[in-house]
Amino acid sequence: MFRAMTNDMAVLADKILSGDRRALARAITLVESGRSDHRADSNELLETVARSSRQALRIGLSGTPGVGKSTFIEAFGCMLTAQGLKVAVLAVDPSSARSGGSILGDKTRMERLSREPNAFIRPSPSQTELGGVARRTRDAVSLCEAAGFDVVLIETVGVGQSETIVADMSDVFVLLIAPAGGDELQGVKRGIMEIADMILVNKADGDLKHTAIRTTADYAGALRLLRKREGDPEGFPKAMPVSAVEENGLDQAWEDLQNLVQYRKDSGFWTARRAAQAARWFADEVRQGLLRKLQSDPRAEAAMAELAEEVAKGIRAPGAAADDVLRFLRSGDPDQP
Amino acid sequence: MFRAMTNDMAVLADKILSGDRRALARAITLVESGRSDHRADSNELLETVARSSRQALRIGLSGTPGVGKSTFIEAFGCMLTAQGLKVAVLAVDPSSARSGGSILGDKTRMERLSREPNAFIRPSPSQTELGGVARRTRDAVSLCEAAGFDVVLIETVGVGQSETIVADMSDVFVLLIAPAGGDELQGVKRGIMEIADMILVNKADGDLKHTAIRTTADYAGALRLLRKREGDPEGFPKAMPVSAVEENGLDQAWEDLQNLVQYRKDSGFWTARRAAQAARWFADEVRQGLLRKLQSDPRAEAAMAELAEEVAKGIRAPGAAADDVLRFLRSGDPDQP
Repeated sequence: MFRAMTNDMAVLADKILSGDRRALARAITLVESGRSDHRADSNELLETVARSSRQALRIGLSGTPGVGKSTFIEAFGCMLTAQGLKVAVLAVDPSSARSGGSILGDKTRMERLSREPNAFIRPSPSQTELGGVARRTRDAVSLCEAAGFDVVLIETVGVGQSETIVADMSDVFVLLIAPAGGDELQGVKRGIMEIADMILVNKADGDLKHTAIRTTADYAGALRLLRKREGDPEGFPKAMPVSAVEENGLDQAWEDLQNLVQYRKDSGFWTARRAAQAARWFADEVRQGLLRKLQSDPRAEAAMAELAEEVAKGIRAPGAAADDVLRFLRSGDPDQP
Repeated sequence: MFRAMTNDMAVLADKILSGDRRALARAITLVESGRSDHRADSNELLETVARSSRQALRIGLSGTPGVGKSTFIEAFGCMLTAQGLKVAVLAVDPSSARSGGSILGDKTRMERLSREPNAFIRPSPSQTELGGVARRTRDAVSLCEAAGFDVVLIETVGVGQSETIVADMSDVFVLLIAPAGGDELQGVKRGIMEIADMILVNKADGDLKHTAIRTTADYAGALRLLRKREGDPEGFPKAMPVSAVEENGLDQAWEDLQNLVQYRKDSGFWTARRAAQAARWFADEVRQGLLRKLQSDPRAEAAMAELAEEVAKGIRAPGAAADDVLRFLRSGDPDQP
């Protein structure tokens, strides 16, 4: 039985590496599964494809609903496929489990792109918590890279910590905002201006064109007040107006992104960042696994919930309370389960 | 022996609660100790003083070297003690272990404040890693609160993640910046504009006064582009010019901070934030403890280091590698160590 599964995974890995899109979709379903009996298969598959060491450009993309994110991805994606590039679109939507999601799973919203043979669109995995969505999406990104995609677009709506999570699995991060001024201004969510490599003010067309240009200037000014980051060439992060509907400025944005990528590759920042991301991902998996082990004892889980409440109320000190929880765990011999 | 220690801690706790500054200093030294045989005492002490449920206003304060942070703290602190308030100054300096620290430990830099009977100044704990500095400082804040201080100022120079860590143990966060324009502009470190409740442009005196006012306007403009946060009254976060040397604007800054605090207390945000901070602190202690337990097995520590390297190189998948590490740990009966 174990042997057979191993063969299955070897076959699936081969199909993915040859660019079989149905195999890719099936593999993503496997890694998204929360079932513990799928975990060994999933791990084996991911280990096998990791050896391909293929890399895509991972672009994180965030924008609130109404900013024209689908229209932008469709236009931007079609521009890339027209250049012969293979484009995968994944989503991190923390609300997908609760409400059916802010990012629609159906392909109708990107009809043109979904018909492209070089495009692959996948809705957000349904998970009850953002950490789960993040882990599944990181695995899906790895599978898309193994399948030979050149660009992986990871979109998010920016609820809670989702942008930070997407930025940590991306090479570059693009923020899409709507033109506005004065009272209409929604403002950029805190933490985002900090991680964006590029702020694109969409809808720079028709009546909104002038507002978009003014909004761009405002954000460009704000970006100049931030300290230069490691890995940024002159002029980055930058703000620029685009129109997804009129397909204006998309080629310029793509050229700028490629220049940024080239600069980071030349400086060694690209490789260092990928290594640091992988290290954080590993540390995160270890931490999650440790918590899982601790909580596998129902008494530990109950104690943790109770103590968390007492700590929040201020009647227990966090360090001592943590020691109480940790009593439920001890180190053991891995060869003697 | 255990009995005796318990008595010692009860006596020490009583002294702290009565406001004995020497007892406070001794207690901070105890919680800063990395020695495992001090941990039980330290936990006991912190649990005892937690029951006092005294609260200070915890002000996080960040500013790069040269911005006039010491002068500001001295002037601001003396203004508060003159109003009859008890002020403690703590520091989170991630470089303290390596270089002797960017935040000087000697009291000469705040000579006037250190002579005030209602002031207590404590340098950053020396630790090899920022997480350790953070934990010790959080404990020191709790001790200062128990000792009846009205205001606890937690200063940091802002290396690495130190501002985020300080913000997470503060009720309000103040960023001190120097006036500058164009080429001189150092810019605010990413992530800081997001957590600041107040940006104070210092050195608004003499030749720099006009530059300071212009810099203030720039930051006020940038802050307006950020989305309103939960818990912020109208007009917050705000930017304003101050002069620590001429002691100008300090009273206004203090009044604004008090208004912010009152608003947050009235809205329930204050209590909710404190509870959320305590919950994160507890979760952090549990995670750290789990890692410590895992790494107490030298084979696990070695495996983890090796796997982390393979993951960073991209030859192992993070999830599977994490599972390999976790084999070294199993749940056990807490009553049977």
